Amino acid sequence: MGTDAYGQIGELAKEVSLLSSMGSLLSWDQEIFLPKHGLPFRAEQQAYLSGTSHRLWTDPKTGEMIEEALSQVDHGSDEEVNLVRWKRDFERASCLPVELVEKSAREEAKAHEAWKSAREANQFSMFSESLETLIEIAKEKANHWGYEDSPYDALLEIYEPGLKVRDLNPLFGQVASELTSICEKAFRQEQPEPLPPGPYPLEKQKELNRKVAEAVGFDFERGRMDVSVHPFSSGMGPHDNRITTRYDEADFTSSLSAILHEAGHGMYEQGLNPDAFATPLGESVSLGIHESQSRFWENQIGRSEAFWQSWYPTILEYFPSLQGYGPEKLAAFVNQVQRSFIRVDASEIGYDLHVILRFEVEEKIFSGELKVDEVPIFWNDRFKEMIGLEVPDDAHGCLQDIHWSMGGFGYFPTYTLGSINAAMLYEAVTHELGDLAPYVAKQDYAPIQNFLKEKIHRQGRRYLPNELIEFATGSKQSARPMLNYFAKKVG
Amino acid sequence: MGTDAYGQIGELAKEVSLLSSMGSLLSWDQEIFLPKHGLPFRAEQQAYLSGTSHRLWTDPKTGEMIEEALSQVDHGSDEEVNLVRWKRDFERASCLPVELVEKSAREEAKAHEAWKSAREANQFSMFSESLETLIEIAKEKANHWGYEDSPYDALLEIYEPGLKVRDLNPLFGQVASELTSICEKAFRQEQPEPLPPGPYPLEKQKELNRKVAEAVGFDFERGRMDVSVHPFSSGMGPHDNRITTRYDEADFTSSLSAILHEAGHGMYEQGLNPDAFATPLGESVSLGIHESQSRFWENQIGRSEAFWQSWYPTILEYFPSLQGYGPEKLAAFVNQVQRSFIRVDASEIGYDLHVILRFEVEEKIFSGELKVDEVPIFWNDRFKEMIGLEVPDDAHGCLQDIHWSMGGFGYFPTYTLGSINAAMLYEAVTHELGDLAPYVAKQDYAPIQNFLKEKIHRQGRRYLPNELIEFATGSKQSARPMLNYFAKKVG
Repeated sequence: MGTDAYGQIGELAKEVSLLSSMGSLLSWDQEIFLPKHGLPFRAEQQAYLSGTSHRLWTDPKTGEMIEEALSQVDHGSDEEVNLVRWKRDFERASCLPVELVEKSAREEAKAHEAWKSAREANQFSMFSESLETLIEIAKEKANHWGYEDSPYDALLEIYEPGLKVRDLNPLFGQVASELTSICEKAFRQEQPEPLPPGPYPLEKQKELNRKVAEAVGFDFERGRMDVSVHPFSSGMGPHDNRITTRYDEADFTSSLSAILHEAGHGMYEQGLNPDAFATPLGESVSLGIHESQSRFWENQIGRSEAFWQSWYPTILEYFPSLQGYGPEKLAAFVNQVQRSFIRVDASEIGYDLHVILRFEVEEKIFSGELKVDEVPIFWNDRFKEMIGLEVPDDAHGCLQDIHWSMGGFGYFPTYTLGSINAAMLYEAVTHELGDLAPYVAKQDYAPIQNFLKEKIHRQGRRYLPNELIEFATGSKQSARPMLNYFAKKVG
Repeated sequence: MGTDAYGQIGELAKEVSLLSSMGSLLSWDQEIFLPKHGLPFRAEQQAYLSGTSHRLWTDPKTGEMIEEALSQVDHGSDEEVNLVRWKRDFERASCLPVELVEKSAREEAKAHEAWKSAREANQFSMFSESLETLIEIAKEKANHWGYEDSPYDALLEIYEPGLKVRDLNPLFGQVASELTSICEKAFRQEQPEPLPPGPYPLEKQKELNRKVAEAVGFDFERGRMDVSVHPFSSGMGPHDNRITTRYDEADFTSSLSAILHEAGHGMYEQGLNPDAFATPLGESVSLGIHESQSRFWENQIGRSEAFWQSWYPTILEYFPSLQGYGPEKLAAFVNQVQRSFIRVDASEIGYDLHVILRFEVEEKIFSGELKVDEVPIFWNDRFKEMIGLEVPDDAHGCLQDIHWSMGGFGYFPTYTLGSINAAMLYEAVTHELGDLAPYVAKQDYAPIQNFLKEKIHRQGRRYLPNELIEFATGSKQSARPMLNYFAKKVG
């Protein structure tokens, strides 16, 4: 039962969630619809919302109410779980001086423009000054938040609570070394037969994607699907979660993969407990867990032969020109492994090397081992070692991703944590249900979805991410299942 | 120059405009995209925004600051104009007890459901109880606001500042009587040749509409065009104004007319002074002026033969099956006059009789001459007199429009004020530029648009609506130009 102080914090959290849900709609609209000249005012709207939230949430009274409520609720109760998380959120938010938050937003806006120009001009040096500024700001934030070993730990904490460099280094070291060998083998294998040239009309792809998303469990009465330049997923309320994709009329599998990925994110949000909305127990726990949901549906399910066998008759209805190609070739096509300079175009196997490379760069920057102007050379050398390609220029190298320009240091590792967690969850579901292929073959996804809902979605932020994985799978977080899965694929 | 108090009110108004612009986006999204189960949370978001605005704006300190600033700014300055309008807004908003505002929102939500059910069941009595409640609430509001002659005046003031029943009665009385005769003549005329059966593919209609909207002056870098069940126009920032339409594949002229109408609204918003954003001088003045802009482009321009002559070659590119039909027949088709039960389907000539009938009903309700349960009989009798049709049931009669269910008493008259103002503006532009047909024939709309921008849009709320019309046209508001225009059309 809520006490009075607990009730007051709940009201405050509700208000903050109203503000942030509106911010989500503004962002969603900005990605898809906002007219060109609408941008500056949209930025003012967003600044107003985040400023108001920050002010409400970091009011010293909030901290006092949390302490008061903590002294009143039952030990071990859900209320206590919420309060412990709220306390952490409050403390992290309150650590930062307002001037630093504002400076950070201002410099990120500038850096974003600098990054765009640098990428267009294909010249890292045009971005390096902005990057240095953002790194300095990130270090300042880390100092305010505090850390044991490395300022990078304080940044990881933003995206993956509890994650530390000392745990990531051995984990990613193992992945980098084993995956490099697996990839070397895979890159030498024969390429599968190309997809028939299509075209695969956009409208038909949309209909097929919707059917598949609905079948795996994305609820269109509590969400929708749209078109955007970069696929994304966004929640703007307890019953309003939206996903997007982009379309390539020469290859329907790319939009379908993206939809499975985004539907995975969306189903996590839809699977949260709506009665716990606006409290930690009704919130997603981390990016690494979020990404496990998307990659599970995109890869473990969406690249399995059973999946393509089961959908082949439907696919033929939409694209009769595929007659004769067959589900086996489709499955082989979506599983092809190729070297790629660009992370977002990378094959399932090999993708994580891109991620780990950027983690290595970030980690070395924040430990002081690497200077900003040494980044391109380091990137290119290490890329050659891991992927085996000579990076021709910065746009195909260290400049390709947007994250740094948004101050997103510590974000990247969560991609590979997603892959690791997805493989662990796949083993755990298999342990529970037996071989999943017969379920997938019958498009009977509900038992799989129920497992994820019960073990992950409904837990909200009850556990820290790695504790949650242990709760859901019975095992400590490990890259073994993922590496085994990759090795088995390469055969 | 702004004084300190003036600057503070400006900041407050900016904050309120940020909140209301977000409300506009939420509404726009709700009409077009919101998933089914997203509605209750959307209502919470809207309630939060309007509650916050209301609280900010009606703080007694706001009134004190306005008085202080008024004593400091120069007489005759723009600051003074803004402060006079803000003062009126503050006083009107502060008059209403919060409980009444909340009760009103609650009862409107209920009434909206009751109206929908009543319309589906085709039975006015199912709506009459809710309607009586809303009328009582409106009367209560009117009492709080105060009025001289009739509580209805206090309601008109919401939509058309300065408008009084004592002015509307003679104005609309004249229109009703002359227009009834004009319509009688028009209804007896031969019907034009029907449009060839098409179909007119939706995508082609979209492209054509966009081209036309762009040509008349709607700026797609500061706005966009979408599809919705009911066409509407909505502004969500100084450089973000959006219009929608719906499509009928059997008749491309209906979506085109709607787009011209909504583009007229949109161009008014786009023509406001962006430097005066969030102040009265940068705001639209009334619904009757807004509607004059939409009807001007929809009717005076969009139903002229010169318009169809000029666009015919382009239209043929999109719809080659119209080859041989010719621009004269197109112009005749969009000008056909038919009796219609439903206002939104009514011909340009005749439309205003629907409006005036509802005004008469509203006026009699608020003067106490008409009881709610007498509405259907009054409606049907008067409809027979004015339009000459026997109303078969309530759905085709007094239940057809949504406005009452939203508490929108006093809104309807602004539709016909729009027609009246549009005709006056057409005469004024013609006086300035000479015959407009040669401009329209060359698709040279800029001189027309510039007149409207300078004389209407850029004036913001400097004048009251009828003063603005006199400023723009040099004449007192009169139905003569509109009645002449209709009479000339019927020949």
